[in-house]
Amino acid sequence: MTRWALLLEYDGTGFVGWQSQAGGGALQDHLEAAAGKLVGNRVTSVVAGRTDAGVHASGQVAAMDLPERFDGRTVREAINHHLKPLPFVVLQAAAVGPEWSPRFDAIGRRYRYVILNRRARPGLDRHVWHVPARLDEGAMAAAAGHLLGRHDFTSFRAAACQAKSPWRTLDVLRVAREGERVVIDVEARSFLHHQVRNMVGTLKLVGEGRWAAERVAAALAARDRAAAGPTAPPGGLTLTGVVYPADPFSPAGPDRSPAPPSPH
Amino acid sequence: MTRWALLLEYDGTGFVGWQSQAGGGALQDHLEAAAGKLVGNRVTSVVAGRTDAGVHASGQVAAMDLPERFDGRTVREAINHHLKPLPFVVLQAAAVGPEWSPRFDAIGRRYRYVILNRRARPGLDRHVWHVPARLDEGAMAAAAGHLLGRHDFTSFRAAACQAKSPWRTLDVLRVAREGERVVIDVEARSFLHHQVRNMVGTLKLVGEGRWAAERVAAALAARDRAAAGPTAPPGGLTLTGVVYPADPFSPAGPDRSPAPPSPH
Repeated sequence: MTRWALLLEYDGTGFVGWQSQAGGGALQDHLEAAAGKLVGNRVTSVVAGRTDAGVHASGQVAAMDLPERFDGRTVREAINHHLKPLPFVVLQAAAVGPEWSPRFDAIGRRYRYVILNRRARPGLDRHVWHVPARLDEGAMAAAAGHLLGRHDFTSFRAAACQAKSPWRTLDVLRVAREGERVVIDVEARSFLHHQVRNMVGTLKLVGEGRWAAERVAAALAARDRAAAGPTAPPGGLTLTGVVYPADPFSPAGPDRSPAPPSPH
Repeated sequence: MTRWALLLEYDGTGFVGWQSQAGGGALQDHLEAAAGKLVGNRVTSVVAGRTDAGVHASGQVAAMDLPERFDGRTVREAINHHLKPLPFVVLQAAAVGPEWSPRFDAIGRRYRYVILNRRARPGLDRHVWHVPARLDEGAMAAAAGHLLGRHDFTSFRAAACQAKSPWRTLDVLRVAREGERVVIDVEARSFLHHQVRNMVGTLKLVGEGRWAAERVAAALAARDRAAAGPTAPPGGLTLTGVVYPADPFSPAGPDRSPAPPSPH
């Protein structure tokens, strides 16, 4: 058997999320079914980030074991063939060591959340959260500063979150306006369930002027989900990359020279 | 009556194109029906660029006459309400003079064509032409230089084109790579039918190395549609803006100080 790392892109709009479901239809189910058609056997996969229903990815990473008779191009093309016509594709397939894990070897996960901040609802790019009232992105950026670093993020954690600890280290939380769009880039080693969407839903209250930036610090300190803002909708969120000590998709490969961390 | 200029955005994927059709379902039909619900009467419209089936717009401009009892916000919001849930919205509505024409007053039209140039088909952004083989964007840019300026564009004109003259002046034809995407920006006062898509289909032959850049000059000189390349598919094309001597959507308005030309 060879373990394959797969770099994945998908439009999460029509899917029930990453994680396999009894009735099928999850992204994991589609990926495992497509790979199963290639090898004629049941295939299981592990993923770096179990994205929720409606969340997109441009740099998701999964891994699976396949019989040792393929090259990377064959793996990618065959799975993509069987994934047709879903908006879900393998961008790259790379052989990795037998112990490599997309989940446990990851040292960073990068998400981007896009708010379309204009009166008219989305016409052309619908992978956004539509917020008609003008947001103050400067106030949002100032509030974001309170969340950077190592904290107990209980206030931003879904009730269903299964993580043992609510402590996380937020390395990046950047808010920038690009014309009509307010773009929020986030990076951490890992996130709690709904953490990004709960942070975005809270920062939006600051952007609207309903919350002072300092209230975000108070919400964090409260360690109480009820103290923070609502959960932003999934459609504006994209997993843009997963960072490894050695990028499995670089020409050097994961078990050779340590390449600079890169999600692509 | 007041004449209204409307700045429009749409995802052309599911539509039969701009121009009204007997069975309805064209973008023009939807716009006129939505405006008709606002005024309780039949409304007709004129447009700057009659985009083909599957072509998108982020800066289309149309005009229509409505009874003089609205402000711009009401016109925009009411039409958008009646356009729901179509991926078609009014970005701005501005009152203009009674003689103002989105079509004949335009001094420039801007289009962007996006090629997704990678092995995997599109997953997240599907408003592209998928070209798996690596394109040489430098060669494409060099070939594009042969098309700039004033020429008889018969070789790049659809058989169905109704324009009186095949002469057009191409002001901009820029080819640039942005990662996996090859982006082609085009601007002219006006275009022949299918001209942009025929130029892109021809430049793609150069990018693939099947044509030398000089063959594009020969194709242009031949004044024969058969001498140029095939028509690129519509889904990669977006009308990004229309230029007027005075931007009707600027605060200054079209009949006051001449604002700098801008599609937004």
